[in-house]
Amino acid sequence: MSVTDELLANAERYAASFDKGELPLPPAKGVAVVACMDARLNVYGVLGLSEGDAHVIRNAGGVVTADERRSLVISQRLLGTSEIILIHHTDCGMLTFTDDGFKESIHDELGIKPDWSAEAFADLEEDVLQSIARIKADPFIPRKDSIRGFVYEVETGRLREVKA
Amino acid sequence: MSVTDELLANAERYAASFDKGELPLPPAKGVAVVACMDARLNVYGVLGLSEGDAHVIRNAGGVVTADERRSLVISQRLLGTSEIILIHHTDCGMLTFTDDGFKESIHDELGIKPDWSAEAFADLEEDVLQSIARIKADPFIPRKDSIRGFVYEVETGRLREVKA
Repeated sequence: MSVTDELLANAERYAASFDKGELPLPPAKGVAVVACMDARLNVYGVLGLSEGDAHVIRNAGGVVTADERRSLVISQRLLGTSEIILIHHTDCGMLTFTDDGFKESIHDELGIKPDWSAEAFADLEEDVLQSIARIKADPFIPRKDSIRGFVYEVETGRLREVKA
Repeated sequence: MSVTDELLANAERYAASFDKGELPLPPAKGVAVVACMDARLNVYGVLGLSEGDAHVIRNAGGVVTADERRSLVISQRLLGTSEIILIHHTDCGMLTFTDDGFKESIHDELGIKPDWSAEAFADLEEDVLQSIARIKADPFIPRKDSIRGFVYEVETGRLREVKA
């Protein structure tokens, strides 16, 4: 049995006790979260979210690239969110390599070099601020009054705010 | 008090009972999930995931764009995942507009037209298959033996597999 099959058995159990079929499309709390994909960062658990509460956008690093800005534009313009929470975390994989080294290793193996940035970073706090700056610079995201960035500590379970 | 402040109070409660500080960086189950950011789709809940189990990548629609491929390359090459689960869902916001109409409305309001695709789609199952096809076509994602796509039913809590 693959891991996917094992998780599908969990999904059947979830459906069997499901009682949230009437929730509306727009997030009840008007918040969009942009977080790292890291397995140890349980966004619902940490922020105490329930089904229907918030948009959750995640990728490698929790960095803001064009696709996160696309998601935020849709979240705010079509579904009414107005606050943004960014979450990076300690012991992040993005701190363990450089773009140049990663692309060179792929080039060595495949003979093709990625024509994109892997978005590696050397400083967590600095990258949180960089992600906030990218949102602020986007002309299509309308609501920028509440954009706050955090580092989640995988060792302690704590969320620490990053201020410029 | 902003909603963000309310969620930060939840985060303090999470940290107070936290006991998972020793988990390793690579996901225990070797799985990466690509899902829509929709507030009603609780990926941890549906799949029965715990902290440390799986990478979770999310955006508007759960579509596969360049940034999801970047995240999957990092997930597989640096952190050892080998199975991919894609989740779209019923009543998705992406079904409610067209790229052309969305960009035209922004153009009308701001005088600038987005130079990117909003990735709207008209057919859920077709877009799940499109997302799988984009992963299969990527030269930098090494493991493609287990890529399975699903539609989550927000009305019933059920996960329905999409097959070509």
